Amino acid sequence: SRDIPSKPGCLNGPASALCFLLEGYEQYNCQQSAPKDATSFDVRGTPGVDVYIVHNPQVAKVPTCVPRWPLDVRVEVVVTMKTPSDAVNDNKVSLLWRGRYISLDADTTRSGAVKRKTWTWGPDGQGAILLVNCDRDDPKSSDMDNKDFCVRSYADLRDMSCMILRTRGPDAIFDDHKLVLHISMSDADKVGVFHARGDDILHQYKHVLGSNELSYIVDRPSGQEEDTFYVEGLAFPDADFLGLVSFHVTLLDVPDENLPETPIFTDTVVFHMAPWIMTPNTQRPLEIFVCSVSDNADFVEAVSKLARKARCKLTVCPELENQNDRWIQDEMEFGYVQAPHKTFPVVFDSPRDGEMQDFPFKSILGPDFGYVTRQPYNESVSSLDSFGNLEVSPPVTVKGKEYPLGRILIGSSFPRIGGRRMTKAVRNFLCAQKVQAPVELYADWLCVGHVDEFLSFVPAPGRQGFRLLLASPSACYKLFREKQEEGYGEARLFEELETVTTTTIDEILANETLRRENDYVQSCIDWNRDILKQELGLSEKDIIDLPQLFRVINKKASAFFPDMVNMIVLGKHLGIPKPFGPTVDGRCCLEESVRSLLEPLGLTCTFINDFFAYHTLEGEVHCGTNVRRKPFSFKWWNMIP
Amino acid sequence: SRDIPSKPGCLNGPASALCFLLEGYEQYNCQQSAPKDATSFDVRGTPGVDVYIVHNPQVAKVPTCVPRWPLDVRVEVVVTMKTPSDAVNDNKVSLLWRGRYISLDADTTRSGAVKRKTWTWGPDGQGAILLVNCDRDDPKSSDMDNKDFCVRSYADLRDMSCMILRTRGPDAIFDDHKLVLHISMSDADKVGVFHARGDDILHQYKHVLGSNELSYIVDRPSGQEEDTFYVEGLAFPDADFLGLVSFHVTLLDVPDENLPETPIFTDTVVFHMAPWIMTPNTQRPLEIFVCSVSDNADFVEAVSKLARKARCKLTVCPELENQNDRWIQDEMEFGYVQAPHKTFPVVFDSPRDGEMQDFPFKSILGPDFGYVTRQPYNESVSSLDSFGNLEVSPPVTVKGKEYPLGRILIGSSFPRIGGRRMTKAVRNFLCAQKVQAPVELYADWLCVGHVDEFLSFVPAPGRQGFRLLLASPSACYKLFREKQEEGYGEARLFEELETVTTTTIDEILANETLRRENDYVQSCIDWNRDILKQELGLSEKDIIDLPQLFRVINKKASAFFPDMVNMIVLGKHLGIPKPFGPTVDGRCCLEESVRSLLEPLGLTCTFINDFFAYHTLEGEVHCGTNVRRKPFSFKWWNMIP
Repeated sequence: SRDIPSKPGCLNGPASALCFLLEGYEQYNCQQSAPKDATSFDVRGTPGVDVYIVHNPQVAKVPTCVPRWPLDVRVEVVVTMKTPSDAVNDNKVSLLWRGRYISLDADTTRSGAVKRKTWTWGPDGQGAILLVNCDRDDPKSSDMDNKDFCVRSYADLRDMSCMILRTRGPDAIFDDHKLVLHISMSDADKVGVFHARGDDILHQYKHVLGSNELSYIVDRPSGQEEDTFYVEGLAFPDADFLGLVSFHVTLLDVPDENLPETPIFTDTVVFHMAPWIMTPNTQRPLEIFVCSVSDNADFVEAVSKLARKARCKLTVCPELENQNDRWIQDEMEFGYVQAPHKTFPVVFDSPRDGEMQDFPFKSILGPDFGYVTRQPYNESVSSLDSFGNLEVSPPVTVKGKEYPLGRILIGSSFPRIGGRRMTKAVRNFLCAQKVQAPVELYADWLCVGHVDEFLSFVPAPGRQGFRLLLASPSACYKLFREKQEEGYGEARLFEELETVTTTTIDEILANETLRRENDYVQSCIDWNRDILKQELGLSEKDIIDLPQLFRVINKKASAFFPDMVNMIVLGKHLGIPKPFGPTVDGRCCLEESVRSLLEPLGLTCTFINDFFAYHTLEGEVHCGTNVRRKPFSFKWWNMIP
Repeated sequence: SRDIPSKPGCLNGPASALCFLLEGYEQYNCQQSAPKDATSFDVRGTPGVDVYIVHNPQVAKVPTCVPRWPLDVRVEVVVTMKTPSDAVNDNKVSLLWRGRYISLDADTTRSGAVKRKTWTWGPDGQGAILLVNCDRDDPKSSDMDNKDFCVRSYADLRDMSCMILRTRGPDAIFDDHKLVLHISMSDADKVGVFHARGDDILHQYKHVLGSNELSYIVDRPSGQEEDTFYVEGLAFPDADFLGLVSFHVTLLDVPDENLPETPIFTDTVVFHMAPWIMTPNTQRPLEIFVCSVSDNADFVEAVSKLARKARCKLTVCPELENQNDRWIQDEMEFGYVQAPHKTFPVVFDSPRDGEMQDFPFKSILGPDFGYVTRQPYNESVSSLDSFGNLEVSPPVTVKGKEYPLGRILIGSSFPRIGGRRMTKAVRNFLCAQKVQAPVELYADWLCVGHVDEFLSFVPAPGRQGFRLLLASPSACYKLFREKQEEGYGEARLFEELETVTTTTIDEILANETLRRENDYVQSCIDWNRDILKQELGLSEKDIIDLPQLFRVINKKASAFFPDMVNMIVLGKHLGIPKPFGPTVDGRCCLEESVRSLLEPLGLTCTFINDFFAYHTLEGEVHCGTNVRRKPFSFKWWNMIP
């Protein structure tokens, strides 16, 4: 605001309206007095004055709410008064520079363009990105970094996004104006904002917005043109949170004690919370996890050997921590979060909560390793909530629609009503991440009910870069019939296992009940095959059927011999449950069949004995291991979900 | 399923595989035995048989999960058995016709194309539409039609959408198959489904799905190829309901007592619940509502006269029903719902709940007149929840984005924190309708806090087809200064009103406090002007400033003289609060100013005295009336929200 000097002689009615060229008047030289980033200005008069804009070659009256006028020598502001002033300061003309005068900025380097009020997806998208600060950079801390209201370390700070408030212009404007940084009630519990003050001394960084703090009056020391804020995310996208958070800075006019403050100008910057992203079998393995329990030393040794072959780090969860719970696949899923400035892995802790339930929080959460979990609302947790039932496909394109980060696969009771289904809390979370649109498969026909009991993905040359492996009773019957015809009908399943009842190929083929059960299982897997082909855009060429038989007991299915599709995939190295199939020419015909299907793809098959330590307990190699993998090189914000 | 006759002589090993041409075998003549709508088929063999497809000129083995084969004379199915059958029925080949064999259909005439599993917006969109059956066709009924589980009348039935289950094919297939109609748990409380049975006798229509019923086994009387279902909506789209509801029909194989049922085929149809749509001032008025209270006989007579002029029905809410509450604008908002088969008005009952709170439910709800309301969650209701604070713009285009049904406008505390705001329950409801994307304006600066205190829309020729009217202190000061200069400074406001203190133009212009207050009010309206221009894509040419003064008492603003923008718009006939402005040349200069602004647009201005019955109680003509208008000719499903 600027006062117009009262010059009664000049301002005496419309007939002799004086042209008051701001260009020629020191305070009103728009170009000279404007802050250097200003590109336009607004001008308004109190009711006692009329303000005109002369924008060559037109003359137009400035409307009461002015569009932004370009800061240009050809633009002149004309102020007239209809009656002489009665007193000094009785009328005012407000001049407000627009453009970069007051702005709230964040890292929008995704695109270079600055269009901060909206956030858009895709390679041409724009908008800043925020990470849920869910790691624990300080090992002495008892909880995640975003659970407190202070900045503990530069490592903590590096997980936050920067937001800069620029206020270039004359200090005087802040005498009767207030600058307020604010967020909406609904965004307040999603973020924490720290004001960087005092020459970068961390303990002086003050928590100013978020949780109960909805607005913050920014004190602007004289001449200071930039204020830096650091923003941390508190919550992942979910059913009730789209992932977008808006920050506003508003310049308030504080005109008079008896009148309320008036908003003059607002700038907004929108952040998108980085989603939690899963990694498929085709991503390079970085670290393998396995539990050491009372009876699985050989298994741990076999996995360890495979890890060395694949040049992967091996982490063994000791019995003290796993409490003899060996199903490390089921307790957690590894994923990651990514922003342009930072990427770190995040473990998703399953609501399964078996004996090793504290392991992810106590031992995985750490510096640059985040943690997230979801507890069911009012539902009970079933076996389908274990993360053996949570997988992700490699990148696919479905009828022209690209899923560059693949699609999440979960098993459900679909298409039946009333069966077991993953809890809504977990399904909602997975859907809300948006970038790996989940597909529900039908897994409730299995006793345990996990998708990893009938499918896996392996890297392979060709159009898709992978093959989908499906357990196949049909393929097993076909193989056994061939072997029978070749004269091996007497070859025995489980022959190598001393304490297990053996059975011959002839007996299997003659077992009518077993055949009916496997017809049923095949129809269930076929149902999923249809969905997978449709939802992942696969053709028959992309699918490999691995010979496998099941039993159906109490109307639920389990693997009859070790379930080979339940394998661990470490690049080209596969760790496959040893099936103990019938020996033909000195070799297990099931292993030979699987080798003949997979080795031509450049994969190497290592069969691991998991019979007593896992198989008889209704799980296999995949259920007993877990793998942290390399994040995608593709950036999630470049996709269009 | 069909049994393959055991012909051991013919089926004896791969070398002499018999070609079993279905074409030449009575039961397997795909084209002759297929239902007439079938376009393709699937074929599968049990493990004992191999099934080949001969698709001229290629020979390919049928994979375990078959893609659909076209029903074509050139397609032959070859069945071989590796070993002779041991018994009758030991091996089977299943043949399943696809296409229109089993299908669930609804009225997708929107586009003609049938792509039922997805629902899409826009002129090329497809998918069926459902109405919330929220009217009360039976006057004797105590609640809305969708609150019971029966079909009471054909009028009730006509509000429902039809869904047809077609099951063409041999009856025999239903001997060992079950047909189940089902919905998901989350959709169950959104719909009710009735099965039309017994030759259209209404009381035999049975409620089969919805609420607690998630699945329904369809009994298929022999030879009956179509089952008709009627679907009614129970809930409008809202924060937790996107508006889409899916129905599935699944054919289950019931193979064996010891095995579970297997899904063979599922068809799905998706409905979109019709949103609640508001009508702007530019839509033709059909019915005007006004309250008769103890002291407003003249006002009711004036409104009645205007209604006659505009050839509109007038409905007077009697004192017995309004309990002396005159603010009929605030208690409810009229809108409508639309499906291709049916359109009816729906009143949205405000959570305001004044003395006339029962009026919408008791007197508006009726045959083909629906009702909806929203109660706040855990918030208290404020004056901003009255529906004088809920308006809708005429159709607009904003930077290329079309809003063919306009945009909803509500007043809020934006951009401040902690002020009054419409309850989340109402805001969520309005947003969830999607087709009139709401804009939040700043209304909390007003004592009452309604958008109708500072804006209105009138039909007008030109690009947009309307003008936005804004209350304008600046325009009023300008007018009064002109009149002062013309020598009318002594002319008095309120002169015609005997009991009201009058004040001259000179006194008003000299009142420094009043001027400051109106500067403040102008800046608040300017803030909204900016938002309206941006969010409705308006230019200055689309806006008309009506002269108006306000007072600011306890930091909240109210109209100083009757608030002219708070008018009733009936086509070209405007009912405007009579301002009782200063008389110049025998005429009110405020009325003359408004006439000069609006009459050139073809509008006629009738000034209605609402001073003591409404103005002094903080409301005006618009607040005291309500208008039901003609639905848009544009169909909501043809837009892209």
